[in-house]
Amino acid sequence: IDDRQDDALHTMMEEVHYADIAEIINELNEDQATYLIKLLDSGKTSDVLTELDEDVREAILGNLSSKEIAGELEELDTDDAADIIAELPREIVQEVISEITDREHARDIVDLLRYDENSAGGLMAKELVKVNENWTVLTCVREMRHQAENVTRVHSIYVVDDEGILKGRLSLKDLLTASTKAPIREVYIPKVDFVNVNEKPEEVAKIMSKYDLEAIPVVDEIGRLVGRITIDDIVDVIREEADKDYQLAAGISQDVEADDSIWELTRARLPWLFLGLVGGVGAAAIMGGFESLISQHAILFFFTPLIAAMAGNVGVQSSAIIVQGLANDDLKGSITQRLVKEMMLAALNGLILAAVLLLFTWFWKGNLPTALAISISLIAVIVVAGIVGTFIPLFLHRRGIDPAIATGPFITTSNDIFGILIYFWIAKLLLGIG
Amino acid sequence: IDDRQDDALHTMMEEVHYADIAEIINELNEDQATYLIKLLDSGKTSDVLTELDEDVREAILGNLSSKEIAGELEELDTDDAADIIAELPREIVQEVISEITDREHARDIVDLLRYDENSAGGLMAKELVKVNENWTVLTCVREMRHQAENVTRVHSIYVVDDEGILKGRLSLKDLLTASTKAPIREVYIPKVDFVNVNEKPEEVAKIMSKYDLEAIPVVDEIGRLVGRITIDDIVDVIREEADKDYQLAAGISQDVEADDSIWELTRARLPWLFLGLVGGVGAAAIMGGFESLISQHAILFFFTPLIAAMAGNVGVQSSAIIVQGLANDDLKGSITQRLVKEMMLAALNGLILAAVLLLFTWFWKGNLPTALAISISLIAVIVVAGIVGTFIPLFLHRRGIDPAIATGPFITTSNDIFGILIYFWIAKLLLGIG
Repeated sequence: IDDRQDDALHTMMEEVHYADIAEIINELNEDQATYLIKLLDSGKTSDVLTELDEDVREAILGNLSSKEIAGELEELDTDDAADIIAELPREIVQEVISEITDREHARDIVDLLRYDENSAGGLMAKELVKVNENWTVLTCVREMRHQAENVTRVHSIYVVDDEGILKGRLSLKDLLTASTKAPIREVYIPKVDFVNVNEKPEEVAKIMSKYDLEAIPVVDEIGRLVGRITIDDIVDVIREEADKDYQLAAGISQDVEADDSIWELTRARLPWLFLGLVGGVGAAAIMGGFESLISQHAILFFFTPLIAAMAGNVGVQSSAIIVQGLANDDLKGSITQRLVKEMMLAALNGLILAAVLLLFTWFWKGNLPTALAISISLIAVIVVAGIVGTFIPLFLHRRGIDPAIATGPFITTSNDIFGILIYFWIAKLLLGIG
Repeated sequence: IDDRQDDALHTMMEEVHYADIAEIINELNEDQATYLIKLLDSGKTSDVLTELDEDVREAILGNLSSKEIAGELEELDTDDAADIIAELPREIVQEVISEITDREHARDIVDLLRYDENSAGGLMAKELVKVNENWTVLTCVREMRHQAENVTRVHSIYVVDDEGILKGRLSLKDLLTASTKAPIREVYIPKVDFVNVNEKPEEVAKIMSKYDLEAIPVVDEIGRLVGRITIDDIVDVIREEADKDYQLAAGISQDVEADDSIWELTRARLPWLFLGLVGGVGAAAIMGGFESLISQHAILFFFTPLIAAMAGNVGVQSSAIIVQGLANDDLKGSITQRLVKEMMLAALNGLILAAVLLLFTWFWKGNLPTALAISISLIAVIVVAGIVGTFIPLFLHRRGIDPAIATGPFITTSNDIFGILIYFWIAKLLLGIG
């Protein structure tokens, strides 16, 4: 590759899908990558650019002139072009946009830049086929042929009125069977799913996957058709959403990847570890308060990691189920019902586990009262942990906070402290000391 | 609803999307649900059926005759029909299939039943438009019109040879611009992405989302075109996959939902809690071995929950990043490089946390040597936890085991034990006691 065998490389790259080229380029150094990108046909370059890792793309674009960047953007759909522009340094955005020769394309891109990245507006593209309800079928077909040039795949034909307000959609079949002179008003289907520009991407994803849609029109506050979102963008949203929840549950607070720098990874991980540290110190302080127990009942202290671990595990299990139920919108019944169910579930699990622990501790130390005290505390700890794990995500959800934050370190830490407190308190009570 | 106001309900339901009707029916009792289902138009009923919860659907189908079920299945695409049949009791499957009047549809469904649910074959549908490379454009258009009747949305036209082997695809545009007498052989695009029937659904999902495909053809072992998978099925696969990984990380071993029975939930949760119990007992045993320390250095015991929590958190963080990297295929570099990086990352995090802990313990107990011993152990524990968290998923992946199983309770438990062992061992060494 370093020999710069232009021709051989060029023919080779012709054969390869742009997503694969992007993967190869991600692995190269900056010079090699820029060289390869410049070698590619323009149509392909732009597609490769959208697939690259953000930092690689940034480096490569830094080596291209504004004119070259503008050329690539012209080849892209407006949504991908807007995403790339949003990453460029402020100084050159203006320049790049002014270099785009297709002024309508430039206008569409600029429009898209105004929308919040985290909204339907930030996801949508301007490429769509729209027809006026007052046109005849004939005008419509002519106009469509013109519009379709800019649209890679026609998912649906949308019908608007003179104000640009979305009225419905048109099936290709109806269009072909209708008389050419009929006004569109008489043939279109008035029922169409749509989303508002301000809708959250997760909501759009839910709607599209619930109704199995491949594209959905986006309207502004007064119902005017402003763009459309396709299912491939939604697939990315679903993946990112899942990754984010998974990372939150694991105690990682930003969207990081294994290949990010140590500094970025530390910033994402340290806050949660800090929380754990505070929790641990709290637990230590609690145990310090029960120090007098240590001479007679040292064994109680040996089981604190067990109690803490069980409290944490049960809490994470309960909260994970609730968080998932909330995310998929399939929770039924009231909070009270849910808490009662979780309590029974935790009590059942607790009983089984406590019985096993009882036998073990009894045989190990031969001291039935202590073994009983530990096992009974375990049940109590598990039940409380289950309730806390169920209640916190439901509570956060009610308050409009993403409940995903509640799983992982947050639940673990608070349950550790609760658990240890309950454990020593019950043990002390049962063993009649203090 | 219980008043059986047939007409009013019927008109109401006409207006509602089938996915919403399914949601309503999921909330009703069996009688109400069956009543409502029978009220619907046949075309809608079948769509509603595919969207229902599995147990609700089972109950409703139990109240329908084989003939009625067969009628619904005729309305469905082959993939959805096969999914429903696969859930029916063995005795009536035969009967239902024999009641399907469209024999080709029945044959297709039976074909699909043979494929493993967890493979591309289990996901695909038989509905597709395929043309022979030896046909002329004219024959092709005529045939397509006939085939397209059975296909809701035409994603692509696939080209096969006389043996049925997939050769390529055809763009609608090329078809329309080519001379009607030209053989397909001369106009088709020989490059087409496809998957094997035995491919795992996750792999299909990766390929389709990487190349932004809306449909992909499926071929058998010798390359014959046997079906196609559409993006909406893949969206479901991605969601299920993410849910499964999330639950594994939270220590839930089967695909359960918050609304499943207490017994099912217990079966999914208990095994992992049991693991935690064993780990806790192990930790207790280790601490028992250091019992002699307790008289002079009780404070060491107070910090065991902290040590265990930190070891668990760091382990989960490291493994989650690796598991995600593996799932998204974006890990680069060798295992050694990764371990070295994780070691440095953990050491950095460990140093910062240890410094904070040192100050706190020193002020609390005024005993610098003990505080130092605890903090130094913390660093060692964090580094080891990071290495274990990185290594285990990579190791499992190498051995062909799903690394997602490694996050959550598995890592937490092993790191708890490791952590506590290292902690007491280092503390003993540093404090010079034995």
